[in-house]
Order: sequence, then structure tokens, then C-alpha cells
Amino acid sequence: MTRHYNFCAGPAALPVAVLERARSELVDYQGRGLSVMEMSHRSDEFVAIAEKAEADFRQLLGVPENYKVLFLQGGASLQFSMLPMNLLGQGGSADFIQTGIWGKKALNEAKRLGYACHVAGSSEPNGHVAVPEHDVLRVSKDAAYLHYTSNETIGGLEFDYTPHMTREDGQSVPLVCDMSSNILSKPIDVSEFGVIYAGAQKNIGPAGLTLVVVRDDLIGRAKPDIPSLFDYQMLAEAGSMVNTPPTYAWYLAGLVFEWLRNDIGGLTAMDAINQRKSDKLYAAIEASDFYSNPIAEQNRSRMNVPFVLADSALDKAFLQEADQAGLLNLKGHRSVGGMRASLYNAVPEEAVDALVAFMADFEKRRG
Amino acid sequence: MTRHYNFCAGPAALPVAVLERARSELVDYQGRGLSVMEMSHRSDEFVAIAEKAEADFRQLLGVPENYKVLFLQGGASLQFSMLPMNLLGQGGSADFIQTGIWGKKALNEAKRLGYACHVAGSSEPNGHVAVPEHDVLRVSKDAAYLHYTSNETIGGLEFDYTPHMTREDGQSVPLVCDMSSNILSKPIDVSEFGVIYAGAQKNIGPAGLTLVVVRDDLIGRAKPDIPSLFDYQMLAEAGSMVNTPPTYAWYLAGLVFEWLRNDIGGLTAMDAINQRKSDKLYAAIEASDFYSNPIAEQNRSRMNVPFVLADSALDKAFLQEADQAGLLNLKGHRSVGGMRASLYNAVPEEAVDALVAFMADFEKRRG
Repeated sequence: MTRHYNFCAGPAALPVAVLERARSELVDYQGRGLSVMEMSHRSDEFVAIAEKAEADFRQLLGVPENYKVLFLQGGASLQFSMLPMNLLGQGGSADFIQTGIWGKKALNEAKRLGYACHVAGSSEPNGHVAVPEHDVLRVSKDAAYLHYTSNETIGGLEFDYTPHMTREDGQSVPLVCDMSSNILSKPIDVSEFGVIYAGAQKNIGPAGLTLVVVRDDLIGRAKPDIPSLFDYQMLAEAGSMVNTPPTYAWYLAGLVFEWLRNDIGGLTAMDAINQRKSDKLYAAIEASDFYSNPIAEQNRSRMNVPFVLADSALDKAFLQEADQAGLLNLKGHRSVGGMRASLYNAVPEEAVDALVAFMADFEKRRG
Repeated sequence: MTRHYNFCAGPAALPVAVLERARSELVDYQGRGLSVMEMSHRSDEFVAIAEKAEADFRQLLGVPENYKVLFLQGGASLQFSMLPMNLLGQGGSADFIQTGIWGKKALNEAKRLGYACHVAGSSEPNGHVAVPEHDVLRVSKDAAYLHYTSNETIGGLEFDYTPHMTREDGQSVPLVCDMSSNILSKPIDVSEFGVIYAGAQKNIGPAGLTLVVVRDDLIGRAKPDIPSLFDYQMLAEAGSMVNTPPTYAWYLAGLVFEWLRNDIGGLTAMDAINQRKSDKLYAAIEASDFYSNPIAEQNRSRMNVPFVLADSALDKAFLQEADQAGLLNLKGHRSVGGMRASLYNAVPEEAVDALVAFMADFEKRRG
């Protein structure tokens, strides 16, 4: 068996321990005579798997009692539609902080659906290299929520603060955060948010599962003419089982949560490891004139590290040699080019060490 | 390792050969050093997996060139919303044949979204024990499509004909068929349909994947204000990758298609096996006064066989003893009670033999 280091931005690396556990249970789950994939979602066995996964997730992230956790399909992108449909059912504006491609997609989708939208702040003027400062943000008078992307996967830009905002009338604006690419990478205070959502395929599990953490008072605001499967209230009341959920992805997410709790020791421990990993890579980039990353220091993503070579003519050779050295998927997003190393939870520190060593060697030979 | 016979209605049994193949490749896909779950959906490796799956599906079902095959999320239930949003964008009515719970859900969802709906025929008067005859169906003057459920998974009612209909103005009405529970169980003529769709978790693969086969002229009729991820045109143009698709479920579906082609020998061979399986079980029910099935002979489902005991007080003992004998998930749907044996493609003939033998023995002892 071969295992390489996988720096893919998503679907991304999973912990080897999780894959091995899944393999051992794939054909026969714990002597029950069938695979998890073959279980009714309403069977006692699967309900136990699902509940354990939710309990572990709640414990890891510290999700308060007054939040529901939904296990859905459609990816974070489907939430771009579901969010305004759920949260603007009683009017108001969707406010957005724009810090890159994903936040822009969220805004464009709300506009496409005909909702009132307002840009509360944007890093577009600086080319998305620094998150706008908190004190320049301006929410609209009737902001029903403020949406932002805590980590822009493509740009490699991560918020270094939580953008709490208050409307002119003194009302606090519910924060809605797309945490697809940095959820579970560090402890957070869930009570600061109205909605947190994330596609699974970075830090949670395989593609095809989306987690939505939503505060109770934001449930039940949708108009009755939105698709049933979009309605947070119906989904919450049915325990995410209005129809058949993606059972195997849910099970795998549960294995990842167990690994985070038992093998890593929780999010504080994960945070420290992630800090070391990204510190090492940024230090290597900083120390060299051959590699560079454009992002302001305080907003450098710990999860996605884009970088370019001084001579882009060497990109192809870099990627080819890296691949041959077992360092996979370092190509930057097709919209920006260059390189990108994604250092999600499941990417071990050894992978970063190997990458840094390869980069130094490549520079010596080709720089 | 233990493997029992699994009669679950969905998520349902998968071929053991498929599970074993998936297990062997789970941690390291063909020496590439990573799992299929960890591959970028845009990588050469995954694109090859995805294209092979689609090609095999097209070959198996005989999908003509002028149809797109979409690999989506959300289950068949999400199509209940997507269908009218895509097909009624230029007006007209959604017509429905009602033969049970799933068809009713499809109708109710189109109504919920505010679309004009018409019931073209219904088996409600006969308690959903016989599909309405073709010559009693009446489509509306402006029918944009006629929706039906070729096999009602809960009721165990299967169409024995294809309900082609023509409007008063002479226009043929595009047929839209929910084939979730009998797709790939036999050869069909795809060119008879406008749209065929199916949740994967019965005859295709694991839950979390939905296949939609749509004729080209029905693509591009949606209004521009529906969710992007609902728009068949955008999905078709992006090869089902507007956002990250459920990659692992797609891969597993591909393994099932390969198994159908290579191990079974295609849909004609599968059809014969399915016929023998259901013939055996219905014959056992018919031959006994202890077991009964209410469905008219010509509409008895080959995939889902509901049956009741003469004395329902014995239901619990039947299910418990069956489970102990390694015959899993024979409980009827919670909305109807009794028993149900689902005999999807992956349920081997030996499973039916074992069930029939158990039923005879149980009747002898308790009847």
C-alpha cells in the first residue's frame, strides 16, 4: 500500500486512522452482517451512529443547547440559496463582507434569487490581500444577517477577528459564517454566531455532506413556498431526515470527530498543531526570495497557503517533481494559478516538513 | 466476517463484490497513494472515474446521445422541487398520476411551490392496489409534462405500461418518471421519456447521490431566478460539477455499473434474475392463507413486496425470528405496517430462497 502527502484543497486528505477504520468496517459493520451504506437511515444501528456523530461534533465545537446541527446535502454552495430563503422570509437585507471568490458567490446567489443585498465591507480594493478592518464595516439599516467567509480557500485569506456588528437601531446583527475550510481547525465560541455552515470535504469528511449549525431563533422564518428540503424548520424537526440523508458520509464524519477527540485530543490540541504547520510553511516562504505569498501577515490562512515562484516558467517542473516526490495536489486553483498547499487537520506535520524540504531543494537546484 | 441477507427498502443492499472492491481500494486507490474520497473532483484520476461511471450507465440503460446524465445531490425528493422549477419556467401545468405515497409527495411539492398541477389519474379510489388503466388517464390542455412513479416503494405497486399521453392539441406530453426503486432492474427504452430520475440508494449505490437523465430539449427552460444548483442547464454545462459533487458515492455507483455489466451481464440478464426472485416470493405468498399481498397481479412490484400475516399479533415474532435467522430489515414502512421484502438487484436469489424457506417454517410453527 502507498500513502502520499495530499495537499488538495478539497475533497481533501482524511486521517489515515479514519480510512483504516472505515476499511475494516466496510463490508461488515461490527458483526451486524451489513455495511453502514446498506443500513436504513431509520434503523437503530444507523440512528446510533448519527447521534454519536452529532454529540461528538457538539462536544468538540462546544455547540450550545439552543443551536440545531443539521446534516445536509448540496455543499456549502446550496446554503448560498438556503440562507436567504430561510433568514429573509420576514424581510430585511442580507449583508456581506467580501474577501474573495466564495463570499462573492454567496452574494451573487442571494442577488440572483431577488433578495435585497448590501456589501458591508470588501477587500476588493486591496486585491483581497487583507481583510477589511472591523471599524470600516457598515451594515444596512435593515440587515437581517451579516455573511462572511472566515477563510477564503482560493485566496488563502483568513479573518483574524469576528465581525460583530450592530445596526443603527441598536440591534445586533446575526453573524452567518461560511466556515467550510477552517471549521474544527481551532476552538471557536459558537454563541457568537447565528449560523455556521461548512461543506464536509475539507475538515469534516467526504464530499456530499454539509453541516449547518443554526441558532433556534433563526429557525421558522422561511416563507411557506420555498422547497421543503430547504426549510431549516422542517429539517430540524425531522433530525435532518426529511428524506434519506447521505448516511455513509455522516458515518465517516463521525469517525473524523472521534479521531479529533481521541487521537488528537480536541480542538485546542488541533489548533496548536495547525499553528506549527502553517508557521513552518510561511517561514520557509518568507526566508526565500524564490517563493512568495501576497497575503497580509495577520490574514494569512492557516489552512490554505497559496504561493508563487519568482519564475512562473518553473511552475510545471515544480508540480511535476513534487508529485514524483509524493507531494500531491499542490497546483493553485485554476482561477489564480501558481501553487497552493492546503494544510487541513488531516495533513500531518510530517507532510509540511517534507514539503518545506522539497521546496528548499527545488530552489537550490532551479532557483 | 458476517454477511446477512438484507431486504431493506433503502438505503439497500449493495453487491458484495462491489463492497469488497471498495474495501480493497479505500485507503489507496490503485497505488496512487490516496483514497478516492481524498481526490479533487477536477483531478485527472477522479474525472476518469466519473466519466467511466457515466459511460457504463449510458451503455447499460441505452441512454441516447440527446440526453444528459446528471450526478446530483439531494435525493429524488429534491427533484420534486427541481422538476417544476426547470420544466415549468415557460408556463403550463404539471400533470401527475397518483399511485401512492411518493407520487403524492411529488405532487404536493409542486403545489407548495405554487405551480399549476393536475391529477391525470389516480389509484386512490382502489386503495392503491392497481395502477389506473391507460385509457382512463386525462392530461390537462396545457400539460408541460406528466409525472409518475414507475414503482411505489412503500405500496409495492409497479406500472405494467408506459403512460404515453397526447394533449388535446395533439402535442405529445413529455414523461417524467421517478424510477428510484426500479431503475436498472430491467431494460427500458429511454427515448420514451423526457426525464428519468432516481435516488441512488436502491439500485445504484449509496445514499447521497441522485441520477437525472434529461432530454436536451427540456434543458434551458428554467427561469433565471431559481437556485443555481437547481438549474439543469448550468448543471449539464458543468458536467454536474457546478460545485463539488458527492465524489465517493459517484465512484461507488460506477462500481455497481461495472458489476451489472461484467458480473451480471447487463439488464436483460438482471431482468431474468429479478423475475425469478419475485416470482418465487409471490408464489409462496399465493400458496399460503397465512401470508397475503393486496396488489393486483399485473402491478405487483418486483422490487418491493409488502405482505401481511393473517394474524398481525405475530408480526413482532416474525420479524424477530427472521432477524435471528440473518434475514434483515423485513419490517414494513412505518406508514403501513406489516412486512416488506425489497428484492433489489443486489439481493441474491439465495436470499429469496432463504426467506421463502423461513416463511414456510414460521407458518408451520405459528400459523
